[in-house]
Amino acid sequence: MKKKIRAVQYGVGPIGAAIVRLMREKESIEIIGAIDSDPSKAGQDLGDVVGGANAPWGVPVSADAAAMLGESADVVIHSTSSLLPDVMDQLMACLAAESCIVSTCEELAYPYRKYPKLAAQLDAEAKTWGVALIGTGINPGFVMDKLLITLSAASQEIESARAVRIVDASKRRLPLQKKVGAGMSVAEFRAQVAAGAIKHHGLPESVAMVSDALGLGVDEITETIEPVVAREHVKTAFLEIAAGQVAGVHQIAHGFAGKVEKIYMELQMFVGAREPGDTAEITGNPNLTLTIPGGTHGDIATAAVVVNCIPAILDAPAGLRTSRDLPMCFLPPGAKP
Amino acid sequence: MKKKIRAVQYGVGPIGAAIVRLMREKESIEIIGAIDSDPSKAGQDLGDVVGGANAPWGVPVSADAAAMLGESADVVIHSTSSLLPDVMDQLMACLAAESCIVSTCEELAYPYRKYPKLAAQLDAEAKTWGVALIGTGINPGFVMDKLLITLSAASQEIESARAVRIVDASKRRLPLQKKVGAGMSVAEFRAQVAAGAIKHHGLPESVAMVSDALGLGVDEITETIEPVVAREHVKTAFLEIAAGQVAGVHQIAHGFAGKVEKIYMELQMFVGAREPGDTAEITGNPNLTLTIPGGTHGDIATAAVVVNCIPAILDAPAGLRTSRDLPMCFLPPGAKP
Repeated sequence: MKKKIRAVQYGVGPIGAAIVRLMREKESIEIIGAIDSDPSKAGQDLGDVVGGANAPWGVPVSADAAAMLGESADVVIHSTSSLLPDVMDQLMACLAAESCIVSTCEELAYPYRKYPKLAAQLDAEAKTWGVALIGTGINPGFVMDKLLITLSAASQEIESARAVRIVDASKRRLPLQKKVGAGMSVAEFRAQVAAGAIKHHGLPESVAMVSDALGLGVDEITETIEPVVAREHVKTAFLEIAAGQVAGVHQIAHGFAGKVEKIYMELQMFVGAREPGDTAEITGNPNLTLTIPGGTHGDIATAAVVVNCIPAILDAPAGLRTSRDLPMCFLPPGAKP
Repeated sequence: MKKKIRAVQYGVGPIGAAIVRLMREKESIEIIGAIDSDPSKAGQDLGDVVGGANAPWGVPVSADAAAMLGESADVVIHSTSSLLPDVMDQLMACLAAESCIVSTCEELAYPYRKYPKLAAQLDAEAKTWGVALIGTGINPGFVMDKLLITLSAASQEIESARAVRIVDASKRRLPLQKKVGAGMSVAEFRAQVAAGAIKHHGLPESVAMVSDALGLGVDEITETIEPVVAREHVKTAFLEIAAGQVAGVHQIAHGFAGKVEKIYMELQMFVGAREPGDTAEITGNPNLTLTIPGGTHGDIATAAVVVNCIPAILDAPAGLRTSRDLPMCFLPPGAKP
């Protein structure tokens, strides 16, 4: 019998904690530790920090990244920030420790367009150490790109592609409801957008991935962020929103090839969305539409996509990979290492 | 610039012809010849045989498989039969010619359960020659297995899986309408089923693939074939069906793990289906349902899946592969070799 996959969790926020709880259910994975600089977490037991079953686990959370990476994990699950430049040092340190990486960093999902130099640097470093890394999650990484790309395998010709994701933020945790601006005035929302505090990252990355995979030749990507304004009073488990206040975000990304729109991606995340769901469409021969009524739950599914991706990244050729390249599949809890 | 992919088409029936026409549109592929023993095709120009644009192409159809395989194609597209034992010699000859294979043979899509010895033999032979082979298409190979497996990447836990495909055979070619028994009496239909003449092959292969990928532990697969009886008179471009006659097939496959149903797959292919579509469902955490309203057109999409799979099989490690293993994606017509 092979050894278990030795995993380190880098970043124990809400998503990191969900990932840890899920990894704990997989017989093929052994969590050897976690890294988090938050003084309320460092030094604690990971099971206690994530509210896991049967805690404590005897698994440390440490603020000392270098020491934890020195344990030579097979894979680091990285979940600290959406922005690639902010996490370059963390990622480079993981690679130099000869660990593969699965990261939820949205800008890592397909970094070739916005950060070609950083992408090349990560790819080269990963190849130097013989390991692979990927940025993935439900979005970007799955529902607006990987599903569309998989669907495209049934296409003879493709003219354009489209993905629409509508999320009812009522059912999500409070930080997510706040992150989409729920309860703000429109002016406050716009100020927060201008400050970079409100934005779901990853739409341009999905547009770029789909364009390259489907050969749509997108040479310009634009993105808008508008508020969804509540038409009536809405109440969630965490907060109340008056009519006229912001209920959430409405983001649209367009991909143009020589001024012709080839890709349209739309994300609505707001409290009170009545018809949540994911839709992916290909116009071509044949026309194809795929829908997931109700949609894929962001937190549950992001943890799932990340953990399920672990065997694939360990099997992948060294270098920077994306969800475009890898077969994606559930990791059965009882699967042998 | 790399050389084009040199392809041979093995079998120029309706699906083979659709594959050839599609390959012809891809800049990265050069069709060097085709194999077909039909005296009305052998010796002709392939472009003429498939009704291709700008025929003749100067590409031969030959009955001499050995001679054509001696041309050392990079890939053979194989489309001669649904039954694996019937095509073993053909496949082994392609492998010995050091050609990769993409085959529409339904029983090759996931042969490990029904034909473990043949699967091992193909895998070993492919590894001997450093090439890879795959059986794929829209079903099996995509809509009832690969899509479900891809969807499973968003799952934290899986209890069971289900796929339902409803095809309106009115829109398909005459051989397909006849193949599903359209226009027969119920007695004639049952006789044809007993004789093995009426059956869509591949459901047990999809059940087995999904069970292994999702860890559902299926130890018994059952399959039924029943007629769909026309309730009213139906007319297609090719034939007429009276009320009471057979309109098509209704096949159900069950996968049981210790007597508990874990996988349900249902295929309805009949003339006059009013709500064609593909549905894939996962019961677990979360529950996930994916639908393709209208469904994926069998002929168009099978040719698409097969041709789009060519780059992936050329990149794959040597051996027997399945659509479970490989990332699937559209091959853009202008993609560089």
